[in-house]
Amino acid sequence: MKSPFITRRGLLERAGRVGGLSATLTLSQVLGLLPSGCSVVSESNVSFEHGKGTSVVIIGAGIAGLISAYELKNAGYSVTVLEAKQSAGGRNLTIRGGDKITENGHEDQVCNFRDGLYFNAGPARIPSHHLTILDYCRKLGVKLETFIHANRNAYLQDNRAFDGKPVRSGQVINDTRGFIAENLSRSMKANNLDQEITINDQQNLLEFLKNFGNLDDYHRYMGSPRAGYQTLPGAAESKGIVNVPLNISELMTARFWTWKLHLEEEYNHQAVLLQPVGGMDRIVDAFVSHIGNDITYGAELVEITNDDQSTKVVYKDRYSGGFNEMEVDFCICTVPLPILAKIKTNFTTDYTQAIKSVPYMNVCRLAWQASNRFWEEQDHIYGGVSWTNQDIERLVYPSHDFQSDSGILIGAENHWKRAERFGNLSPLERARFAMSDGALIHPILPKFVSDPISIAWQNIPFAQGGWALWDEQSVKEILPILAAPQGRVFFAGEHLSHLPGWQEGAALSARHVVNNIHNQV
Amino acid sequence: MKSPFITRRGLLERAGRVGGLSATLTLSQVLGLLPSGCSVVSESNVSFEHGKGTSVVIIGAGIAGLISAYELKNAGYSVTVLEAKQSAGGRNLTIRGGDKITENGHEDQVCNFRDGLYFNAGPARIPSHHLTILDYCRKLGVKLETFIHANRNAYLQDNRAFDGKPVRSGQVINDTRGFIAENLSRSMKANNLDQEITINDQQNLLEFLKNFGNLDDYHRYMGSPRAGYQTLPGAAESKGIVNVPLNISELMTARFWTWKLHLEEEYNHQAVLLQPVGGMDRIVDAFVSHIGNDITYGAELVEITNDDQSTKVVYKDRYSGGFNEMEVDFCICTVPLPILAKIKTNFTTDYTQAIKSVPYMNVCRLAWQASNRFWEEQDHIYGGVSWTNQDIERLVYPSHDFQSDSGILIGAENHWKRAERFGNLSPLERARFAMSDGALIHPILPKFVSDPISIAWQNIPFAQGGWALWDEQSVKEILPILAAPQGRVFFAGEHLSHLPGWQEGAALSARHVVNNIHNQV
Repeated sequence: MKSPFITRRGLLERAGRVGGLSATLTLSQVLGLLPSGCSVVSESNVSFEHGKGTSVVIIGAGIAGLISAYELKNAGYSVTVLEAKQSAGGRNLTIRGGDKITENGHEDQVCNFRDGLYFNAGPARIPSHHLTILDYCRKLGVKLETFIHANRNAYLQDNRAFDGKPVRSGQVINDTRGFIAENLSRSMKANNLDQEITINDQQNLLEFLKNFGNLDDYHRYMGSPRAGYQTLPGAAESKGIVNVPLNISELMTARFWTWKLHLEEEYNHQAVLLQPVGGMDRIVDAFVSHIGNDITYGAELVEITNDDQSTKVVYKDRYSGGFNEMEVDFCICTVPLPILAKIKTNFTTDYTQAIKSVPYMNVCRLAWQASNRFWEEQDHIYGGVSWTNQDIERLVYPSHDFQSDSGILIGAENHWKRAERFGNLSPLERARFAMSDGALIHPILPKFVSDPISIAWQNIPFAQGGWALWDEQSVKEILPILAAPQGRVFFAGEHLSHLPGWQEGAALSARHVVNNIHNQV
Repeated sequence: MKSPFITRRGLLERAGRVGGLSATLTLSQVLGLLPSGCSVVSESNVSFEHGKGTSVVIIGAGIAGLISAYELKNAGYSVTVLEAKQSAGGRNLTIRGGDKITENGHEDQVCNFRDGLYFNAGPARIPSHHLTILDYCRKLGVKLETFIHANRNAYLQDNRAFDGKPVRSGQVINDTRGFIAENLSRSMKANNLDQEITINDQQNLLEFLKNFGNLDDYHRYMGSPRAGYQTLPGAAESKGIVNVPLNISELMTARFWTWKLHLEEEYNHQAVLLQPVGGMDRIVDAFVSHIGNDITYGAELVEITNDDQSTKVVYKDRYSGGFNEMEVDFCICTVPLPILAKIKTNFTTDYTQAIKSVPYMNVCRLAWQASNRFWEEQDHIYGGVSWTNQDIERLVYPSHDFQSDSGILIGAENHWKRAERFGNLSPLERARFAMSDGALIHPILPKFVSDPISIAWQNIPFAQGGWALWDEQSVKEILPILAAPQGRVFFAGEHLSHLPGWQEGAALSARHVVNNIHNQV
């Protein structure tokens, strides 16, 4: 099973190597020496009068739709947002007690969490270089706190190694560093590197490796406090006993290192990650408080027709069952491709074929209400992720309200085929699996968790998937087709960015089309 | 210049290898497969009546003194805490607007921070395996949040490389990983490792290295998004451009990898670290709210005399100038060694010599009030540490109140000779240096910072240093002497633990002596 992140990473990496962006770079940026991270879609710089007399209908009140509406409204346009559901946010979805999850083909679930507890069922983290979404948080007063990914106390569990027992990530990571450093040092000392390295560099490198792996004076890895203690150091004569190094062959048999172990170094998962205090939908709330009056809920898109002068949009009022028609100057369509594929349009054949050619990611999550934060009290895990090769893929511990008397534990967060299997189960069966898989990491888990609630994004109406799955070829050939306007219809959403699955991608895409519309007015 | 952490680490590592603790370990603990981290000093398990009729005087209201008092009081003892200063906490010191810092040999400083801002001048982080202090936080209702150490967006700056320009830690770390993985892969493929590795393990290792370094299919490191982007990926056709890999020879010339780069893997600095919401002294406040009535402030220790039946303590009342004498059943002395060395006692010669033989760490910090969180807005750094080879050693960014309109930036946090030099400067000169050093990392820093306040712990009365500096020999020969009681006088404090400089060490040491007293009653 391949990881979504490897694919995404591989894609971006290759795209990056080829270059391709025509932005002008200063020499220091090329050398990587100065603050990087210029956002490629700058904030629109038009007057409050710019859009006066121009009407725009926006399909979808997810992040792309909300940002489009916010920007256009600030520029004086007449804006209507059509949203098929009864609430805004799209895949930015935070579940609290009383909320209902409806999936195609499954019974509805109602959340039983007690007051104050929540579960981010969609996006859950904001990398600190996702400048656009962070700018909106600043501007709209959405308070942020740390989202913890990397935790050296969290566990890695793989049935193929260590008798299936979980091991601490800090032990795996630091024993591995020791092994690597020892072996590369040995090769260097034997002059076995077939690269030319100056004597001075060699000495520096050996010293570096000693520090990197925490080697002894003979460049041997003999274990390290970095890999944790069997008995913690204490008072007076209690020195503590460090862990015996893990067997490297067994470590290599476990497969958590194929991507899970390194996810913390992937650009969009590197420290520091952030989350809104109180739930990811605080971002949605902030936008809605600005443009809420312009959103029509229960408005399900039926048809988009372009002509030279305007665009006609037909939608079904899901409350009354009746059909309404709007004629506007421009349309911004943020509908996910699996949904858009079923809409009647007069788009070009190339475009409609492109819509159908992009697969979407299966993504599931399951959240437990826990009556006891056993992962903190017993395992000393404050936030972060434990990984397993079972179908639940990971446990995610809350990054907030430490040491309180309860909390929401993400008991499954999976992708691809795992998510396909998991999503095909009934919510009850999912919970059963999540409990037994979770118990492989925390045997005590079943004792303290209850009120499971799960979501399989591929089964969610008006989403039908987590995010667009681009590959090297499709991102070159299909994305440019889908990102270009069809007459007066513009397209936005995470799927039309190089950050698929991220709110930042949706935000940048929204700003991109808003700027395009500004240019046409 | 050696780092305090390397020393501490080296010490503990060697102690750990030798073993030495007689605790019984289960097989799974030895294999490192089960949750480790048993605390070696368990909570005392005596009744509320145990200490009735027994009087104890505790010298010092730092963490060790407060915990001793709290535990003894809960066990029914009659407790008096003598504290030389006008407030409790000792080196657990949080500075807010209006607070005064008094150093020997320097002018007093008064803090000008606006309301709501603070600076932890002593301990600032709590590792998630410091179980004792975390237990007290839970028990006493001290709210915790994340303290961020590792931040891939933070900078490393060394005058010896990259023209002295700061580089992002994520770039240094991931380019280094790529280099290591490529070279070890090459050695392995050429069968140049002189270790016997099975074919199967070799294949696993090569695959591991590819993932570890993000190598291409030929096991070459060609740059990686992990090392950051020159131009971030964006919408539509904006793919982003990854950074060009740093020159490895230049990387090895910079010395940030000797320990600064790896500090995040040292056991006491590994993710996840925590901090009390609102300042480290929330812990002090919590204890004081339980035992405040038993603390006598302004009581400066003058003399301790042991006899068979009791202990006599003489102290000076710093308010009245008069001398008071107490006769009690037991004494717990938590006075730092440089201060204790000047007290009149009837301790054994071995003991008094031991007191004088332990050097203390020079530690300085300087905090700026910033009118703008430029590190977040311009550099996308939310919490964490930037490092420099200048005397300020590091900048520490706040881990809380993200995106608010101001904040406290630690502009210097240094040790050893750097701290000696820094502490010898006047507060004004320190600020001048901190500004020019800080500008090497953030050229814009001088524009936004003001109201510097600094502390040199070696100059602080009743502390005279940051923490006890043990080495391999002294921890074996001297620590056992100092940790043993002198008659009815027991000793506690971070210096009598294997976690010097940490509140956890003070806490474990306090519990240790409290248990010893319980056993004698």
